[in-house]
Amino acid sequence: MTTDDIFRQIRSKRAMLCVGLDTDYAKLPECVKSGRSVPEAVLEFNRRIVDATAPHCVAFKPNLAFYEYLGAAGWDVLGKTVEYIRSSHPEEFIIADAKRGDIGNTAKMYARTLFETFDFDAVTLSPYMGSETVTPFLEYPGRYAIVVALSSNPSSSDFQGLINDTAYGVEGKPLYRAVMEKMMSISTPDNMMFVVGATKAGKLKEIRAFCPDNFFLVPGVGAQGGSAEEVIANGASAKGGLLINSSRAILYASSGEDYAQAAAAVASRTAIFKG
Amino acid sequence: MTTDDIFRQIRSKRAMLCVGLDTDYAKLPECVKSGRSVPEAVLEFNRRIVDATAPHCVAFKPNLAFYEYLGAAGWDVLGKTVEYIRSSHPEEFIIADAKRGDIGNTAKMYARTLFETFDFDAVTLSPYMGSETVTPFLEYPGRYAIVVALSSNPSSSDFQGLINDTAYGVEGKPLYRAVMEKMMSISTPDNMMFVVGATKAGKLKEIRAFCPDNFFLVPGVGAQGGSAEEVIANGASAKGGLLINSSRAILYASSGEDYAQAAAAVASRTAIFKG
Repeated sequence: MTTDDIFRQIRSKRAMLCVGLDTDYAKLPECVKSGRSVPEAVLEFNRRIVDATAPHCVAFKPNLAFYEYLGAAGWDVLGKTVEYIRSSHPEEFIIADAKRGDIGNTAKMYARTLFETFDFDAVTLSPYMGSETVTPFLEYPGRYAIVVALSSNPSSSDFQGLINDTAYGVEGKPLYRAVMEKMMSISTPDNMMFVVGATKAGKLKEIRAFCPDNFFLVPGVGAQGGSAEEVIANGASAKGGLLINSSRAILYASSGEDYAQAAAAVASRTAIFKG
Repeated sequence: MTTDDIFRQIRSKRAMLCVGLDTDYAKLPECVKSGRSVPEAVLEFNRRIVDATAPHCVAFKPNLAFYEYLGAAGWDVLGKTVEYIRSSHPEEFIIADAKRGDIGNTAKMYARTLFETFDFDAVTLSPYMGSETVTPFLEYPGRYAIVVALSSNPSSSDFQGLINDTAYGVEGKPLYRAVMEKMMSISTPDNMMFVVGATKAGKLKEIRAFCPDNFFLVPGVGAQGGSAEEVIANGASAKGGLLINSSRAILYASSGEDYAQAAAAVASRTAIFKG
């Protein structure tokens, strides 16, 4: 999928929303759990959420941690969820929230897993081990590495904001900027996106200034407290440039039998694109 | 397992070796592949390698990337490999090489997966998103977070060596040191280890000086070119303090029917503890 394809979807649906499928069995409505095994319940919930929210979102983002804890059965559900989205809503962009990051040899296996064994369009990656953790993912046309630059969690400032003396000969750059500049130097906006946390919306404008063209995946709206309106005002690019994620506020909008309609209602109000 | 337990094993086996189970089906001997499905061949190979090398090593480290690409079947093999080590060689320390790293909510699920769904003793973690990516792993007595500080790959210097202006009010610290000091401040040597690459053996002495007690997991000997002797000379602590990993040089020592004996022979010569 090209960034033009994604922008076309954003305009058509008037939405920049990505629905995060952090599906936690413990939080599922009783009506979904009843009479089903754990993997069956997770899959049924995902299918209903996907169908209900697809008209209001341009991307889905399963969080792998929430599937892995079920062991092999969880990976089976993950695969079936991706297949279901691909076949029933082929216009959707599908992101593996995996935060992988390892040496080249291993990164190649992760790329194979997420782009071949599974049919994801994009994968979130952690940059700590450098550019070779990312390069194998750039070799798949139409697919994306989404590198964590500035995350939305409280301890993101532990390291991401540390100011470097020496980054690329220019003084005074925070780590997240050194990461973005390095990654931009080895990629294009058609194979690289960045995670930029919504709880740092004040910084979005500054980041957009040195990174005008790449899409940003923005977590932290909804349950984590960021404002989607503020994100769009500060972070949109000429061609959209934003996928704004919300997970818990949508998935668990209701614990009753109306959970899918309730999720759709929240989704329809989140990250509206007015451009 | 306490660090005293690990040191006892090191002295008893006269070895600081960790055997990395980066089991790549494409590289398996024909005699293992023949008549077996891919998952069956990987499991058979792992079992034979584990039995052959256990007398010469104190830890095994499956690399999750090499199991995930098989999808659900790979996770099944991973689980069976851990169970096999646990039941047949209960003295071995079992590490999930996963390089996970995500916000608290998600980190908790990863900890549940790797310490409860699977029975690993330790997990490698990537620190980019800060201390909350690690804390859920510290809450399991006798288990360990192993945080990547300085890795052994060529692009490790992209960010890990960047010198910070402002880390904890002290000027001139490289990022990996800021990471280690932060992590040491929230943990003890009985729940925290660090990845410190062997290709940087010159730096090991300096790192050991400010981190005297934690175990280091040292990748990069063998196929990646680092010297185990140099690592031990520069990095050992009063209580051992080193798990020196070798993967490819041991696993693929022979492509013939003698692959397990050949692996044992290489293992017996690698990372010998003379103390």
